[in-house]
Amino acid sequence: MVENLRVAVIGAGRMGADHIQRLHTRIHGAEVAAVVDIDLDRAKAAVAHIPGAQAYATAAEAYESGDVTAVLIATPGFLHEVALLEALERDIPILCEKPLTPDAASAWKIVEAEQKLGRKRIQVGFMRRFDQGYVQLGGLVRSGELGELLMLHCRHRNPDTPPGFTNEMLINDSVVHEFDVIRFLTGEEITSVQVRLGKATSKAPSGQHDPQHVLIETASGVLVDVEIFVNAQFGYQVTTEAAFEDGIVNIGADGGPTVHRAGRWGGEVTPGFEARFGAAYDVEVQSWVDAALRNEIGGPSAWDGYATAACCEAGVEAQKSGEKVAVVLNEKPALYGSFEPAQGGAQ
Amino acid sequence: MVENLRVAVIGAGRMGADHIQRLHTRIHGAEVAAVVDIDLDRAKAAVAHIPGAQAYATAAEAYESGDVTAVLIATPGFLHEVALLEALERDIPILCEKPLTPDAASAWKIVEAEQKLGRKRIQVGFMRRFDQGYVQLGGLVRSGELGELLMLHCRHRNPDTPPGFTNEMLINDSVVHEFDVIRFLTGEEITSVQVRLGKATSKAPSGQHDPQHVLIETASGVLVDVEIFVNAQFGYQVTTEAAFEDGIVNIGADGGPTVHRAGRWGGEVTPGFEARFGAAYDVEVQSWVDAALRNEIGGPSAWDGYATAACCEAGVEAQKSGEKVAVVLNEKPALYGSFEPAQGGAQ
Amino acid sequence: MVENLRVAVIGAGRMGADHIQRLHTRIHGAEVAAVVDIDLDRAKAAVAHIPGAQAYATAAEAYESGDVTAVLIATPGFLHEVALLEALERDIPILCEKPLTPDAASAWKIVEAEQKLGRKRIQVGFMRRFDQGYVQLGGLVRSGELGELLMLHCRHRNPDTPPGFTNEMLINDSVVHEFDVIRFLTGEEITSVQVRLGKATSKAPSGQHDPQHVLIETASGVLVDVEIFVNAQFGYQVTTEAAFEDGIVNIGADGGPTVHRAGRWGGEVTPGFEARFGAAYDVEVQSWVDAALRNEIGGPSAWDGYATAACCEAGVEAQKSGEKVAVVLNEKPALYGSFEPAQGGAQ
Amino acid sequence: MVENLRVAVIGAGRMGADHIQRLHTRIHGAEVAAVVDIDLDRAKAAVAHIPGAQAYATAAEAYESGDVTAVLIATPGFLHEVALLEALERDIPILCEKPLTPDAASAWKIVEAEQKLGRKRIQVGFMRRFDQGYVQLGGLVRSGELGELLMLHCRHRNPDTPPGFTNEMLINDSVVHEFDVIRFLTGEEITSVQVRLGKATSKAPSGQHDPQHVLIETASGVLVDVEIFVNAQFGYQVTTEAAFEDGIVNIGADGGPTVHRAGRWGGEVTPGFEARFGAAYDVEVQSWVDAALRNEIGGPSAWDGYATAACCEAGVEAQKSGEKVAVVLNEKPALYGSFEPAQGGAQ
Repeated sequence: MVENLRVAVIGAGRMGADHIQRLHTRIHGAEVAAVVDIDLDRAKAAVAHIPGAQAYATAAEAYESGDVTAVLIATPGFLHEVALLEALERDIPILCEKPLTPDAASAWKIVEAEQKLGRKRIQVGFMRRFDQGYVQLGGLVRSGELGELLMLHCRHRNPDTPPGFTNEMLINDSVVHEFDVIRFLTGEEITSVQVRLGKATSKAPSGQHDPQHVLIETASGVLVDVEIFVNAQFGYQVTTEAAFEDGIVNIGADGGPTVHRAGRWGGEVTPGFEARFGAAYDVEVQSWVDAALRNEIGGPSAWDGYATAACCEAGVEAQKSGEKVAVVLNEKPALYGSFEPAQGGAQ
Repeated sequence: MVENLRVAVIGAGRMGADHIQRLHTRIHGAEVAAVVDIDLDRAKAAVAHIPGAQAYATAAEAYESGDVTAVLIATPGFLHEVALLEALERDIPILCEKPLTPDAASAWKIVEAEQKLGRKRIQVGFMRRFDQGYVQLGGLVRSGELGELLMLHCRHRNPDTPPGFTNEMLINDSVVHEFDVIRFLTGEEITSVQVRLGKATSKAPSGQHDPQHVLIETASGVLVDVEIFVNAQFGYQVTTEAAFEDGIVNIGADGGPTVHRAGRWGGEVTPGFEARFGAAYDVEVQSWVDAALRNEIGGPSAWDGYATAACCEAGVEAQKSGEKVAVVLNEKPALYGSFEPAQGGAQ
Repeated sequence: MVENLRVAVIGAGRMGADHIQRLHTRIHGAEVAAVVDIDLDRAKAAVAHIPGAQAYATAAEAYESGDVTAVLIATPGFLHEVALLEALERDIPILCEKPLTPDAASAWKIVEAEQKLGRKRIQVGFMRRFDQGYVQLGGLVRSGELGELLMLHCRHRNPDTPPGFTNEMLINDSVVHEFDVIRFLTGEEITSVQVRLGKATSKAPSGQHDPQHVLIETASGVLVDVEIFVNAQFGYQVTTEAAFEDGIVNIGADGGPTVHRAGRWGGEVTPGFEARFGAAYDVEVQSWVDAALRNEIGGPSAWDGYATAACCEAGVEAQKSGEKVAVVLNEKPALYGSFEPAQGGAQ
Repeated sequence: MVENLRVAVIGAGRMGADHIQRLHTRIHGAEVAAVVDIDLDRAKAAVAHIPGAQAYATAAEAYESGDVTAVLIATPGFLHEVALLEALERDIPILCEKPLTPDAASAWKIVEAEQKLGRKRIQVGFMRRFDQGYVQLGGLVRSGELGELLMLHCRHRNPDTPPGFTNEMLINDSVVHEFDVIRFLTGEEITSVQVRLGKATSKAPSGQHDPQHVLIETASGVLVDVEIFVNAQFGYQVTTEAAFEDGIVNIGADGGPTVHRAGRWGGEVTPGFEARFGAAYDVEVQSWVDAALRNEIGGPSAWDGYATAACCEAGVEAQKSGEKVAVVLNEKPALYGSFEPAQGGAQ
C-alpha cells in the first residue's frame, strides 16, 4: 500500500489555512503532518483539530521531526525563495503558491537550483489550469477544430482590494494569472506587454490607478487585451473570450439558479475567488499529491514561475512608461522540456 | 395607385387607443377615418390629433359618412357580436380583437354569417401568431427537422390583474391565447381540457384562485400543460418549451442588456404585454391591411375565433369540475379550408 | 485518530463500480474493504487495483471477514430487501442506492426493522439532494424570501434507455427522483399522482410509451408537472422551474463554455447523469461517511425510501388508469422525526 | 394634413435598394418619388413596382422634375461630396449613408457648406444609435446609476468580406461605426487611436491583415478596445461590454429560440447586418422623416460625419505605424451645439 504524503504547510494565513483544510478533509493520499508559521500561536491553532499534526515556528524544525515527506508553501511571495531552496535541499515534492518568487532574477535562481537537483520537484500554484473552463478552452485550442487561435479578451474583476494593494500588485498578484493562462492556452511565451492607464474609478484607494488596460503579445502574434479592475464593486468575475479562425468561445460566465423577481431576472454574482476557483484548487492539490506519490509534478513548473515573473517585471515597467515593453527570457533548460501542456500540465 | 384603407376603429379604450396610434403612425397603407365610442368625448379626444378623422357614437354613423372602407373592432368582447354582424353586412375587411365573441354559440353565428357572405372578411386578433418566437417555433414544427412535436409546456404570467378579473376570465382572456397558439403550432384542434386548482397565492384578489394548472390534449395526443398565474408580482412572462422527438426548443426568454451590479447579474423583466408583443401587434395589423387591400384576410379567421371559444367553454367547465372535459366542434365549413397555417396565416 | 470506515460494496455493476472508484480515490475517511458480487470474477476484477480489499460472492462472507464496518448497497432494487435486513442485523452504517425497495410493503418492513434497532442506520441514495441547484432552490423555499412555493415544473430527459426498460421503470427508476425532490423541496408528503400518456415518440422501443406526463399534488396543494421522456435523443437534461408567490426560479440549465461556430452558438448538452450529478454523488457519499463516523446518517432516511416507494406504486397505478390516484402512507414513526430537511438532510 | 415627403433615393445598389423598399412599404410620412442611378436601367428596375416614382440618371434631373422634397444618398462614399453639395443648394432634408465623405478635409467642406445655409439639413446614417441595445446602454451611461463609464470592449465580426475590401476599409467602413458609437455613448470626442496587427487568420483574402486590434481613447480617458475581424466565418456579431464604476453591462448577444439537439444547445448566429440592425434602419429612417417634416434632423449630424472621418484618418495612419495617433478636430461650429445626444439624437 502506498504511504500517504505527510505534508508540511508553511504559512497559516488565508491561503495556508485554506490549503490545510483542503488537505485534511478533501484530498486523498495526503495528510497534514506539520504547520509552520513564524507566529507559532497561529500554527498551533491550525493543527488543533488535526490528529497527528504538529506546529512549528520554522521549516527546519518541521523537517527535523522526520515526519515530513512533502511541503506546501503558502507564505507571502517575498519569503518563497528561502523556503524553496530549503525544500529543494530536502529533495521532496513542493507545491508553491504563486508567484514562484517576486522577480525574474530570484525566480531564475530557483530554476538553476532545481536543475542542479536534476528533476522537477516544484509545482507552482497557478490553479486556473485546473479550472474546467480553461481546461475546455485549452482543449479547443489544441484540437484545432476551430482553426488557429487569434486573439484573447480577458476580464479580471474584484469587488475591492485589501489595504496596501498597490499598482504594482495589480500586475504581480492579479495579471500574473493572465500571464500564466495565456502561456497555458497558446503554448507560447509572451514577447511584449503594454499598459494603458485610462479613466480611473473614484472607488479605488488613494495611490491606485484602477482599472488598467494591458495589451499582451505572444511569440506567434496572438494579441491579448486584459481589463484588470480590482475595485469593480459588483462582485468577482474572471472571463475569457477567444477568437479563433472559425469561431468564438466564451468561458467563465456566472452560473447557478436564475431568478425572476420584481423587475429583474438573473443570478447571483460570484462573490470571490474561493467560489469561482474553489474546485480548481481542490483539483490542483489532488493533482500535485497524485504526481508527488510518483515522484513527479502534476502542474506548472518552476520554469512557468520564472517566465511569469519576467512578464510581471515587463508589465510593471510598461505600467510606468505607457510603452510596449519586450519580455526577454533566458534559454529554457532541457529539464523543462518542450511546450506540451497537458491538463494543467507541467512544462 | 392603390387607395389606402380608411379604417373605423370601434372602441377607444386601452386596446383601441393603442391601435389608433399604430394605424396613424406606423402602418403603411391605412389611415384612421373614424373612431367610434359610446363615450363620444373619448372618441373626440382620440381623433383630435388626426387630420381627416371623425368621431362618432355609433358604428352606423361612421359607415353612413361614406369615408369608411375597413373596420377594427376593439370594444369589450360582449359587444363584438353586434359589431361583427353590422360590419359583415357592409362586406368590408374586419380586424376583430380577441375573443371573436365570448362563447361558442355566438361565435358560431358569426361563422354562419360569414359563410353566407361567401368570403373570409374577419381576421381575429390573436397577435402571438405574428410574434417572432412563435413564428420560428411553428417553422420548426412544420419543417420536421426535429421530428414530431410531442409536448408543450406553456407559462403565462402577469404581475397582477385589473379590478374585477374573475376565475372565468383567467380562461377566457388569458388561456385563450394558449388555445390559439396550440392550434397554430400543432395544426390540430384541441380535444380536451382539464383544470387543477392547487395551492393559491396570497397576492390574488378575493374570489380569484391563482395560479391554475391547465392540461390540454390535441387530436393527435400532444399534451400541453399551462401555468396560468396572473398575480405573479415580478413581471410579465410568456414562454413555451416544446419537446420534439429529436430536440427541445425554448422561446420567450427575457432579452435585452445584461447587467452585473452588486451581487446580481441579469436583465430587466418584461413589464407587460405591450413590451413583449408590441412588435407582434404592428406586424399583425400590417398583415391585415396588406391582405385587406387584396380583399383577403392576413391572419386567424372566424373559424379560429369559434374554435377557441369552444375551448374556453370547456376550460371554464373543467375549472369547476376538476375533470377532463371534451371539446366538441361543429363540422368545419369549406370556406375555412384545411389546416395550413402560414406565418400567422388564416385557416 | 478516528479510524476510517472499512466499506463493503455490494454489487459491482455500473453504479457499484462507480462507487468503488469514488470511495477508493476521492472520499476521505473511508476505504473499500470488500466487494461483493454474485459474479465472483466481477468482484475480483473490481478489487484488483485496491490494496487491502477482498472479493466475495456473498455479503455474509464479507461480514465474517471481520474487516467490514459499513456497507454500500448497489445491487438491482429487487435484491435490496435481503441485503438491508442482513446489514441492519449487523447494526452498521448503510448507504443504499435508490430505491430503498421496489414497493411500499417491502419498504415498510425495512422501516419496521430499523425501528426495532432504535436508530437510523440507513441512508437512501437520492443524490439530487446534494446537487448544488436543488440545494440552492431548497434554500430559497425555506428562506421564504420569494413567498410561498406554488408550482413546480420538472423535466427529466434521457437520450435513450437500456434494453428491457419498461413503462413501470419510467416511474420506479426515473420519476422516483422527482418524488424525492418534491418532498425535499416542499417539506411535504405527496397526496396524489395522475399520469397521462399522450403522443408518443417513434424512437422508443416497442412496449414503451414515451414521453409521459405526470401531475403530482402535495399536502398543501402544490401542483407539480413532470415531463418524463427517456428516449429524447439529444442528450440528458434534468431541470426544475419553481413558481413562487413573488418570483420564478430555474435550475439545471446546461453550462460550460459557449461556442459560436458556423451558423450556431451555444454549448454542449450534458451527455448523461454522471456528468450532471457526478459531483452530487461525491458529496452524498462523503456526507454519509462523515455522518457514519459519528454513528448518524447524512441524507435521506428509510422513511424517505418508504414514502417514495408508495408514490411509485400510486404512479404505476395512475399510469394504467389515467385517473388521479391518492398516495396513502402509514403513520410516521417517531424515529424519523418531523420534516426538517437540512442540506440533503435525513428526515 | 401634412404632405408626405417625396424622396429621391440616389444610388440603387445594395443599401439604396434596401432603403427604397423601406420607404415604400414600412415608413409612414414618406414616399419614393425618384430613384437616381448612373446605371439608368438599375434605376428603372427599382421604380417598376412603385406607382408615381420616376427613374433618372442624375440627381439634377430628379430635382428638375419638381416632385422631390427630400433626398436619401446611398451611393459609394466617394460620390457623397458632390451629391451633398448639390442637395444643400436645394435646401432640402438629406439622409446620407455613412460615411459623410471619405476623409476629414472633404467632410469639413460639407460642414462649412451647411453652416453657410444656417440650419442642419444633413443627417448621417449611423444607424446603431437607433439600435435598442445601444439606446439602452446610452441610457445607462447618462442616468449615472452605475457610476462613471470607464472602459468599453467592442467586437465587430463579419463572416467574410466582399471582393476588394482593403485594410483601409476595415477602418473606414467597419471601425467607423465604433467611432460613432463611442462618441454617442460617452458624449465625448475621441483623442487618439492605436492599431496593432497581431496573428492573422488564414481565411482573409491576400493583402488583408485580419483581425486587427484597435485601442481608442476619449477626452476623459475612457479606453476602448475593438476587435475588428471581418473574415470570422461563423456569422455576424456586434457586441459591446461596458465597465462602469459600479457594474458591467453587455449588449448585442444573439437571441432567438434556443434549441437542444443532439449534443449541442444554443441558437442561431445572426447571419448579417440586415438581421442584426434591420429594425434600427427602420427606426433611423422613420426618425429622419418625422424630423424632416418639421424641418429638422432626427439623428447624427454633419459634425458627427466630420468627426468620425477624422477618427478614420487617424486610424488608417495608426494601422500603418503601430503607434498611438492623436485625433485633432477643428473647433465645433455653434450650429451643432453642445454634446447632448438624445435617442439617436443629432449633435
